Amino acid sequence: MTRPSQHGATADGEGPPPIAGDVSSFPSDAELARTLAAGADRATLCTLTADGYPYGSAISFSLDDDGSTVFLMSEMAEHTVNANGEPKASLLIAADPTPGADPLSAARLTLVGRLAKLADPGVSRDRYLERHAYAAYYADYTDFAFWRLTVERCRYIGGFGHMSWVTADQYRDAGVDPLVAAVDGITAHMNDDHADANLTFVQRLADLPEATAATMVGVDRYGMTFQVVTPERPRLARVAFPDPLTHADQAEHAVIGLLRSLRDT
Amino acid sequence: MTRPSQHGATADGEGPPPIAGDVSSFPSDAELARTLAAGADRATLCTLTADGYPYGSAISFSLDDDGSTVFLMSEMAEHTVNANGEPKASLLIAADPTPGADPLSAARLTLVGRLAKLADPGVSRDRYLERHAYAAYYADYTDFAFWRLTVERCRYIGGFGHMSWVTADQYRDAGVDPLVAAVDGITAHMNDDHADANLTFVQRLADLPEATAATMVGVDRYGMTFQVVTPERPRLARVAFPDPLTHADQAEHAVIGLLRSLRDT
Repeated sequence: MTRPSQHGATADGEGPPPIAGDVSSFPSDAELARTLAAGADRATLCTLTADGYPYGSAISFSLDDDGSTVFLMSEMAEHTVNANGEPKASLLIAADPTPGADPLSAARLTLVGRLAKLADPGVSRDRYLERHAYAAYYADYTDFAFWRLTVERCRYIGGFGHMSWVTADQYRDAGVDPLVAAVDGITAHMNDDHADANLTFVQRLADLPEATAATMVGVDRYGMTFQVVTPERPRLARVAFPDPLTHADQAEHAVIGLLRSLRDT
Repeated sequence: MTRPSQHGATADGEGPPPIAGDVSSFPSDAELARTLAAGADRATLCTLTADGYPYGSAISFSLDDDGSTVFLMSEMAEHTVNANGEPKASLLIAADPTPGADPLSAARLTLVGRLAKLADPGVSRDRYLERHAYAAYYADYTDFAFWRLTVERCRYIGGFGHMSWVTADQYRDAGVDPLVAAVDGITAHMNDDHADANLTFVQRLADLPEATAATMVGVDRYGMTFQVVTPERPRLARVAFPDPLTHADQAEHAVIGLLRSLRDT
């Protein structure tokens, strides 16, 4: 779900060529952030020690409907001791980097806000245990409690040169991409079995008639992203769906429909 | 390189059985911490924002000989802005969790200390670019600089119930385990081809004559760790090498020698 950088200009003025096709069809950073958070279940919690050091610890989390994150914390853990003293905190959620690539080219997200212990965790507890079934056996110990990080602002970094601050409202209101769990399957299927369709898309819909090969590297409700081979240089290209998808099941139909519309013309 | 928990007692007094065999042969937490740091190259850096929030960001790092961590930071990155205001920081280094297991059972480490920009990075720069070759093309941009986190204290968590504070001196002076890069190969080889040897070790050297199967789950300079099947319940077991190894190449000889000494008696 990474949006490729369009802003990779380097200090000496060089940079990658612009992305071909309909770049306005990329999801917003708020949508990318919500989607990245929804696809992850562990992260780094940053709290403040009594002597003023920001302190990072590994933590599992789940998401409430508004995108705030929920944790099951032991009273004895350092981050709980810290949070009892100072509620200001942040959570870094990072996508797994592509093996061999610079890890800093992978998407990540920092949710900045305040931690509060939940007196009555209710549905947040259910969500957490749905996601982390192994935690059921210690969830009710008296020295464990559910906590929530209420998001006040959010830093989204899509990769080199692609980053922005997202407000709490933008983050809360953005929808999780319905294709999030289907991306790997769709891209593998298109690249393994329909390389000809990928090439048709970028030749016809991304203004790259000279392209000789195209690999799908991303797909979301708004469209598809391709890594393209052209005689001159490698390019990234974006092809929009005619209408945003609302469910992953619609992807196959949308792709076939788009292909037919091209072959009929 | 995770030392299994010996302290998994739960709030209601239940807990796993103690580890069989020579538990005194486990590496120290300082050694486990240095070894975990040496095997990783990306982590979460925690810095402090101007308005007092601990802020987590994804970062790549390399290690100096004394175990302090080195970063290549853009002046424009949030963590650099933060570090210019407040040098107190920490770095969370986490081992990849076993798929399907509770992520909190995996080893991790928080290095707490202070960040300083290096006026003359020297060998630290070389080490960094050895580890992160893709960074060579931006390492010399004027808005990038090398920084070091000098470790003041260190929190090591080996898994549930296994955790301790390690002092800066203990961390600095502990050696990286010489087997760190060979662990996966050795355990796979022993489990695939020498299951009978694994079983002999735990039956004869870990006081588990009733064991029916043993899987090697860890190995380090001081010994081997096994997950053992017994008629009553699963057990962990530890078997020490007669002498600590100083190089991964010695592992095969040590294992065969230990096995022969048992079969000859």
